[in-house]
Amino acid sequence: MAKLVLIRHGESQWNLDNRFTGWVDVDLSAKGVEEARSAGVLVKKAGIEFQSTYTSLLKRAIKTHYNMLEVMDRLWYPVTRDYRLNERHYGALQGLNKEETAKKYGDAQVKIWRRSFDTLPPLLEASSEMNPANDIRYKNLGIEAQPLGESLKLTIDRVLPLWNQEIISHLKNGENVLIVAHGNSLRGLVKILKNLSNEEILELNIPTAKPWVFEFDENLKIIQDAYL
Amino acid sequence: MAKLVLIRHGESQWNLDNRFTGWVDVDLSAKGVEEARSAGVLVKKAGIEFQSTYTSLLKRAIKTHYNMLEVMDRLWYPVTRDYRLNERHYGALQGLNKEETAKKYGDAQVKIWRRSFDTLPPLLEASSEMNPANDIRYKNLGIEAQPLGESLKLTIDRVLPLWNQEIISHLKNGENVLIVAHGNSLRGLVKILKNLSNEEILELNIPTAKPWVFEFDENLKIIQDAYL
Repeated sequence: MAKLVLIRHGESQWNLDNRFTGWVDVDLSAKGVEEARSAGVLVKKAGIEFQSTYTSLLKRAIKTHYNMLEVMDRLWYPVTRDYRLNERHYGALQGLNKEETAKKYGDAQVKIWRRSFDTLPPLLEASSEMNPANDIRYKNLGIEAQPLGESLKLTIDRVLPLWNQEIISHLKNGENVLIVAHGNSLRGLVKILKNLSNEEILELNIPTAKPWVFEFDENLKIIQDAYL
Repeated sequence: MAKLVLIRHGESQWNLDNRFTGWVDVDLSAKGVEEARSAGVLVKKAGIEFQSTYTSLLKRAIKTHYNMLEVMDRLWYPVTRDYRLNERHYGALQGLNKEETAKKYGDAQVKIWRRSFDTLPPLLEASSEMNPANDIRYKNLGIEAQPLGESLKLTIDRVLPLWNQEIISHLKNGENVLIVAHGNSLRGLVKILKNLSNEEILELNIPTAKPWVFEFDENLKIIQDAYL
């Protein structure tokens, strides 16, 4: 019986500042580090061992993963870092304070950007220094890793192949998998796992640094799922 | 022109205590963390980017790697952790203070254990809690990952396949590779790289946390090598 544990990174500096973060590589806050370490304690107490672990390419997920594993004395776990687990790319909204954005564009528009399934945010200019094509980490990964802005739908669309091509086969082999990622990339995984509608997934808010454990039978049917 | 950077982990707590460490999973000292961060500054200043990075399964190497990459703002680099980069397994000497060992076994015997190419240390009992077969990280890796003690020769013998099967092909593809490992596993790599004799490699002492850069031509011939 394989287990999958999903966890959203701990609090980042910009969660704290209430800014649109997206692919901006913001660090964890001191509280975020503590949250990650507490999550590690919970997983250790639950006695779950992992054969595969995953993070996005963003340091708030990587540091959450590292701090968890350090507490668990499991820094040696194999880890795959994949851009497809990155947060939703928030386009030209990245870096803006959410209140300022509401003043500038109006509450209704901001609500659409944040709460619509398939509306794109205002896109980055290609010349922006936030354009992933100008970032060494995405430059050689091809055009699909260089969005100028994403809807929730597009975010989920890019998470799916990782699930189908890699994670499913680990679970089918009976391996336990840990995924440390972001609010919206995790929504993508949960949408598949729990077969949620577009509306349902929009309503789902995943808290920071709470390990969410899914247990599967041999046919990859969920037996139970719960936060630790 | 590919580059390979070898680096020995920063000072560990047992380096400080002058104990035989081997596969015991001892942490970095505070100075060791600082050494790792200084190494990161040097590599960053040198402007070297890596397409592949490697560590052993031991936390003193993993933490050295993490601290380097954090300073370089490159935590997202892909990383492979491989037991074949582990330190020489020092058998029943592990945990003993080097002076105590000399008193117990005599200076001459200790010198042979430390400075012979193919003499085994006294082996662990199979029932020892230091037996890798009892350690979750090696348990499923097969008998070759479960030594009860190793000579320098055996250490080098297990490092070679990693070089031949993986690292060479990265370098042939023009990728830069970072390897964070241990005094004796790095000796294995340097022996191949510089075609050293058994006697020469015994004389080679690799300092902690000093990045050693090898530059290759297209035929994987070394153009130059130097510490940063």
